[in-house]
Amino acid sequence: MAIMQLTIIPLGTKTPSVGQYVAEIELALQREGVPHTLTDMGTIIEGEPQALLALAARLHALPFAHGVQRVVTQLVLDERRDKEVKLGDKTAAVQAHIA
Amino acid sequence: MAIMQLTIIPLGTKTPSVGQYVAEIELALQREGVPHTLTDMGTIIEGEPQALLALAARLHALPFAHGVQRVVTQLVLDERRDKEVKLGDKTAAVQAHIA
Amino acid sequence: MAIMQLTIIPLGTKTPSVGQYVAEIELALQREGVPHTLTDMGTIIEGEPQALLALAARLHALPFAHGVQRVVTQLVLDERRDKEVKLGDKTAAVQAHIA
Amino acid sequence: MAIMQLTIIPLGTKTPSVGQYVAEIELALQREGVPHTLTDMGTIIEGEPQALLALAARLHALPFAHGVQRVVTQLVLDERRDKEVKLGDKTAAVQAHIA
Repeated sequence: MAIMQLTIIPLGTKTPSVGQYVAEIELALQREGVPHTLTDMGTIIEGEPQALLALAARLHALPFAHGVQRVVTQLVLDERRDKEVKLGDKTAAVQAHIA
Repeated sequence: MAIMQLTIIPLGTKTPSVGQYVAEIELALQREGVPHTLTDMGTIIEGEPQALLALAARLHALPFAHGVQRVVTQLVLDERRDKEVKLGDKTAAVQAHIA
Repeated sequence: MAIMQLTIIPLGTKTPSVGQYVAEIELALQREGVPHTLTDMGTIIEGEPQALLALAARLHALPFAHGVQRVVTQLVLDERRDKEVKLGDKTAAVQAHIA
Repeated sequence: MAIMQLTIIPLGTKTPSVGQYVAEIELALQREGVPHTLTDMGTIIEGEPQALLALAARLHALPFAHGVQRVVTQLVLDERRDKEVKLGDKTAAVQAHIA
């Protein structure tokens, strides 16, 4: 199991606000029933690495349907094989170190 | 005002767990009283761009004090000048598009 | 066509040097005959977005075969649909602005 | 000594091409005489961590002077204290593993 953070940036939009594109990604994840968390800097998604990257390819393609001509997608994939990693585990581990 | 996501990765630690280093960063931010949010993929911090990057330099240096020999720090700085950007604003904007 | 930068970081290795893992990725790309450029901060690869992300999944898995227990892969995928983007095009465009 | 990769993305520009902003950063680095390499995915710069992040703050501010209202800057800072790291060292180390 892995955790992936995904940030999708459409370029050449007329305004600097891109919340509508992030909203579309959020709705796609809700429809697919994928465990995820929206943050101010991206979307964190839980799953198998190969499935996560295939999902990233589908989400990356979404803004082009609205006339966007360039999309820059950044992602970080964090996979451990010594233990399961699920959403919330890493923040919980940090809190455990502090407590 | 800007939002910065910071992820600090120590390399060559004996175990794959790095929660103790993230915990130290969390404590440093609490001590400095900087508005921030811990996520599974990093720490999101609010402030002025120049101050945020100076803070990043200080946080990046922390793991070396514990014998770590290499640190890779990734950060994303998102600044808008057409409106204030604060922690939580971007997720709120996405939710507003969905509602 | 798109350009992808890929950086694969194994965690919990005994030493801070990870060149051997990057070398294995480089060799895999040479074997597959994929157009790419090695830089000091990652590997830049040219291809179709879906194929690039499938390739990223295969490359991300490589270090685990050597006993690594955690791998953090960062990638940036830059796709344009208003024109072809190939390796070297973006640096050439910048040079054209300077000249 | 450290290596930093910097990518500056202006949002809300009218066209998807942002080469002119990258060119301005390139020229600023040439004027300052900072050792750097331009790649298709960013600029790789060599220096001391604190100086590199202060430089990142200055470069991040440049596009705003041209009416851009939002800039997203991504950077990766890679510092080693067990040995000097200079531009070209990491690609050379990978090549040495392959040879």
